[in-house]
Amino acid sequence: MPMLTANTCGVFPVAVTPFHTDGRVDLESVDRLVDFYIERGAAGLTILGILGEAPKLEQTEAITLIRRFVRRAGTRSVIVGVSSTGFASMRALVDVAMDAGAAGVMIAPPSSLRTDEQIVGYYRQATDAIGPDVPVVVQDHPLAVQVIMSAQVIRRIVQELPSCVMLKHEDWPGLDKLATLRGFERDGSMRRISILCGNGGLFLDFELARGADGAMTGYAFPEMLVELYELHAAGRRDEAQDLFDLHLPLLRYEHQTGVGLAVRKYVLMRRGAIAFDAQRRPGSQLSPQTRKEVDYLLMRLGSKNPRFKV
Amino acid sequence: MPMLTANTCGVFPVAVTPFHTDGRVDLESVDRLVDFYIERGAAGLTILGILGEAPKLEQTEAITLIRRFVRRAGTRSVIVGVSSTGFASMRALVDVAMDAGAAGVMIAPPSSLRTDEQIVGYYRQATDAIGPDVPVVVQDHPLAVQVIMSAQVIRRIVQELPSCVMLKHEDWPGLDKLATLRGFERDGSMRRISILCGNGGLFLDFELARGADGAMTGYAFPEMLVELYELHAAGRRDEAQDLFDLHLPLLRYEHQTGVGLAVRKYVLMRRGAIAFDAQRRPGSQLSPQTRKEVDYLLMRLGSKNPRFKV
Amino acid sequence: MPMLTANTCGVFPVAVTPFHTDGRVDLESVDRLVDFYIERGAAGLTILGILGEAPKLEQTEAITLIRRFVRRAGTRSVIVGVSSTGFASMRALVDVAMDAGAAGVMIAPPSSLRTDEQIVGYYRQATDAIGPDVPVVVQDHPLAVQVIMSAQVIRRIVQELPSCVMLKHEDWPGLDKLATLRGFERDGSMRRISILCGNGGLFLDFELARGADGAMTGYAFPEMLVELYELHAAGRRDEAQDLFDLHLPLLRYEHQTGVGLAVRKYVLMRRGAIAFDAQRRPGSQLSPQTRKEVDYLLMRLGSKNPRFKV
Amino acid sequence: MPMLTANTCGVFPVAVTPFHTDGRVDLESVDRLVDFYIERGAAGLTILGILGEAPKLEQTEAITLIRRFVRRAGTRSVIVGVSSTGFASMRALVDVAMDAGAAGVMIAPPSSLRTDEQIVGYYRQATDAIGPDVPVVVQDHPLAVQVIMSAQVIRRIVQELPSCVMLKHEDWPGLDKLATLRGFERDGSMRRISILCGNGGLFLDFELARGADGAMTGYAFPEMLVELYELHAAGRRDEAQDLFDLHLPLLRYEHQTGVGLAVRKYVLMRRGAIAFDAQRRPGSQLSPQTRKEVDYLLMRLGSKNPRFKV
Repeated sequence: MPMLTANTCGVFPVAVTPFHTDGRVDLESVDRLVDFYIERGAAGLTILGILGEAPKLEQTEAITLIRRFVRRAGTRSVIVGVSSTGFASMRALVDVAMDAGAAGVMIAPPSSLRTDEQIVGYYRQATDAIGPDVPVVVQDHPLAVQVIMSAQVIRRIVQELPSCVMLKHEDWPGLDKLATLRGFERDGSMRRISILCGNGGLFLDFELARGADGAMTGYAFPEMLVELYELHAAGRRDEAQDLFDLHLPLLRYEHQTGVGLAVRKYVLMRRGAIAFDAQRRPGSQLSPQTRKEVDYLLMRLGSKNPRFKV
Repeated sequence: MPMLTANTCGVFPVAVTPFHTDGRVDLESVDRLVDFYIERGAAGLTILGILGEAPKLEQTEAITLIRRFVRRAGTRSVIVGVSSTGFASMRALVDVAMDAGAAGVMIAPPSSLRTDEQIVGYYRQATDAIGPDVPVVVQDHPLAVQVIMSAQVIRRIVQELPSCVMLKHEDWPGLDKLATLRGFERDGSMRRISILCGNGGLFLDFELARGADGAMTGYAFPEMLVELYELHAAGRRDEAQDLFDLHLPLLRYEHQTGVGLAVRKYVLMRRGAIAFDAQRRPGSQLSPQTRKEVDYLLMRLGSKNPRFKV
Repeated sequence: MPMLTANTCGVFPVAVTPFHTDGRVDLESVDRLVDFYIERGAAGLTILGILGEAPKLEQTEAITLIRRFVRRAGTRSVIVGVSSTGFASMRALVDVAMDAGAAGVMIAPPSSLRTDEQIVGYYRQATDAIGPDVPVVVQDHPLAVQVIMSAQVIRRIVQELPSCVMLKHEDWPGLDKLATLRGFERDGSMRRISILCGNGGLFLDFELARGADGAMTGYAFPEMLVELYELHAAGRRDEAQDLFDLHLPLLRYEHQTGVGLAVRKYVLMRRGAIAFDAQRRPGSQLSPQTRKEVDYLLMRLGSKNPRFKV
Repeated sequence: MPMLTANTCGVFPVAVTPFHTDGRVDLESVDRLVDFYIERGAAGLTILGILGEAPKLEQTEAITLIRRFVRRAGTRSVIVGVSSTGFASMRALVDVAMDAGAAGVMIAPPSSLRTDEQIVGYYRQATDAIGPDVPVVVQDHPLAVQVIMSAQVIRRIVQELPSCVMLKHEDWPGLDKLATLRGFERDGSMRRISILCGNGGLFLDFELARGADGAMTGYAFPEMLVELYELHAAGRRDEAQDLFDLHLPLLRYEHQTGVGLAVRKYVLMRRGAIAFDAQRRPGSQLSPQTRKEVDYLLMRLGSKNPRFKV
């Protein structure tokens, strides 16, 4: 599969980790899920991210999952989340991932970091620990990890560390930050990097207009993200916005911390992408009321456009 | 004007504070803004909230603003944000507000609080400091103030402190929390309180179905919030959702930390509700790109329903 | 070795993890270090704590260390830190520890917890995951993990979860909290638990007077902690204070976040307890100036009492 | 009185704010307290700091206190804490202070700041708001305000903003940071600034050796801080350390968050510096047990050196 580069683009769904209802990893659903994403146009996928319940896995399970996902993905690129509490564990996980054929790894900063010096120093040590040949995605997700990276600190990381080829842009709000980074490229003060956007896709309509190269998020209708990306690329802005607006009520509902993952797994299960919507404990619960609300939003979505009927 | 009670309901827009471009308070626009809200069906309004730039005001300016807002609001209820770093300043502000004729005050917990004991203790001391006759709105807004209040701690506050008659529900995600609180009322473990919802209205469609009594948020189309509330009250759920979905792209865009206030003031200015969209320093800027995006969303909104043309 | 109970008392040094200068675990020094602690009167020891660089270890290294420490400790109790990002990893580590013969495990809450409900819920799930027969030490260390546990929440944990038999008391300031907990025992609202104190021993002189059962901290002169404990137990308060005051300048110096571990390893190396003062990366550095200051404090300590000459 | 400069040195006690037991400001004790500090060798003093209960004051009280302190201080320099939630309030307070004859103002960053850009930007806006002629003390106190300033960001502030002439160094641990800043001066990358140290004086023995210009802290025996400073200046290092060690047990006890202020006021009252040890609500309480412990430490201090008998 192709390695990540500064020119990688398209939609990389963030894959959930499928479990059986008794908490065991559901490897059969891994295959179904990968097929589901690829059939809907994904350029690759990201596994073991924050929403992938990675912290709940034992190391041996993580290794098994990496290998299964990568093998099934075939020629598509797989990005593996390897954020760890220490560099020894991180390196061990990176070695497994790259040996299995992953396209790169994603690293979020530990929540204790505060100053620019600390953040740049952390990525310096991390890339040093895992080796200079492994493509790295820098994950900028303040809401989840409590670390604020200014555009300037991202530029320092990019300029100093050649293996950092991609940014997962997940600051909120972040439209002007994205524009600032592309401005750095234009004024020559930063080399080009690939920027894929997260945050559930809540601002993807404008992020693509601001210069994003695609999306890296787990919204349960990846085909919408793919189509949005293609319409934008084709300059068909109003059609893109119509499509986005149609999905926004559900997309917004899915983008809730905690319960959002339960919503996402439920929709993926209803769409046949995974067998169960179970989360390993401790997990968020889907209350009956919540399920009814999701059903209502799905019903409305399907009735407005039969392509999205589930 | 009527005092806040546990049965207060409807839409209470959170008013921006109008400034001239040179940073002076714009008192003429205060009157226009109050009229704007009332003409669009507001049951009352909230001033000097977090989004009202209250921390940027000198005490004398805050006093002038309170009096101007309350006088113009006439028979409508005005809630005054009085969160302060100390109880002496809080009490001084509360005295001014209640003397002027405010309907109640809103208090957010200081960000240093952590444990249930600390949170309950804080509201105990605050209500003690301002006096037992002043109706209090408890503001539950973790994203802004970093204090997490469980449903259980809110129940403790409500049960212990009779003057706490309203909750500004602004946790995120918060739908199940809202339902839990209403469940406490049904099982008799908590007396009834009024619950108005914030968070820019991003989940108001479902919050009303979950038992909210209305909205307290500053979305620049308050008439939509009012109509949504009335449609829900009339049981016309699908029409309500259609209306909400129509506004969601703009509403979501306005609900961005920091830049959201700039967007809101800009739309209010374009709608004639205030003369200038200026913020007192330090304020967020509306980049040209952002302004274009807002114009685009306004254009789409107006073209889909001429009632919302600006 | 004896399992932890609610009556366990004495001094449990928090062991550093010895490394070679090239970053490999130094197993020979593990044996020396265990002997060092035991010869100086330790009742047991704690390994893989926050200061034990546990997050920097691969799982296989952690397993090797647990077995080596426990075997060498012989009849002394070993407490194993098992704080993990997920319950699957935690249970795996607990199984290794208890099979090897550990006396119990120590669990700190993840830094994301805020409300009383969340904290109690976390310990409920953790004890459920690892099994009800494993003695648990609840680690209350706000400065390191950002979670504030009130005395009331600790009481809820103790009352609900029988396997929680010990508190590592490391709040700061915490003297009145300690007294409150002992008061809960006296008034019958909480069963007795063992309370050992951390925070580098900075308040151990008064913690023992307030009802602590001993110390769990890594000060590089464990014999002082042991002697302090015994003098207190014998009611020889003034002698205890004289001893404590003699060590306070160094003890305070060692109790610095970050650099403190470097100081501690350096002193342990100078005392022959470990072969190298190396930390695995990323680690704090001992600047030449810092080393000179430690040497100065050691020199003064030894000159005032030859027993502590190094 | 002399204005603050980059060469200001000596001991600036952080003054408590005296209250009557009914919560009123005790202006008579202000005079006694100022005399107490000056008679014991203070070069100046700092008022309305975090420990000065400034947030509990109404604005009119703050103004009265500033004038009273400054008048009584005569030729000694008074630094006024002016940290505020907004620049309008800050400027108003600064105007009062400088008109009254203060020597400069102290500004701590608001706790919401994270990145280097944000921190530098904040001081840029603050100095702009209060005017370029007002000497500013930058307060670096992460434990209290949660903002981490690297040595690099302090250098950026100093280089860009000429009115920032002093640093209140209160990071912890901070010895190497202090040395790094002095190194910046030596290598020419930062102009000289005055550095006074806080943190209750817990590391003042070594801070003076590392290049500090004095202390800015409220330990209830300011004469010890003054003498320590003079002994260091005279190169009498061992005598200085003996003096410091003698006080360390009490100094460490006083340096507890929350209860520390109660301890300090109690000792100051026992020494006759203020009439009451009352705090305005919400304040920390001195439990009977705590009072006994302080009495015990005072008794030991006085018995070892009659000069410090109270």
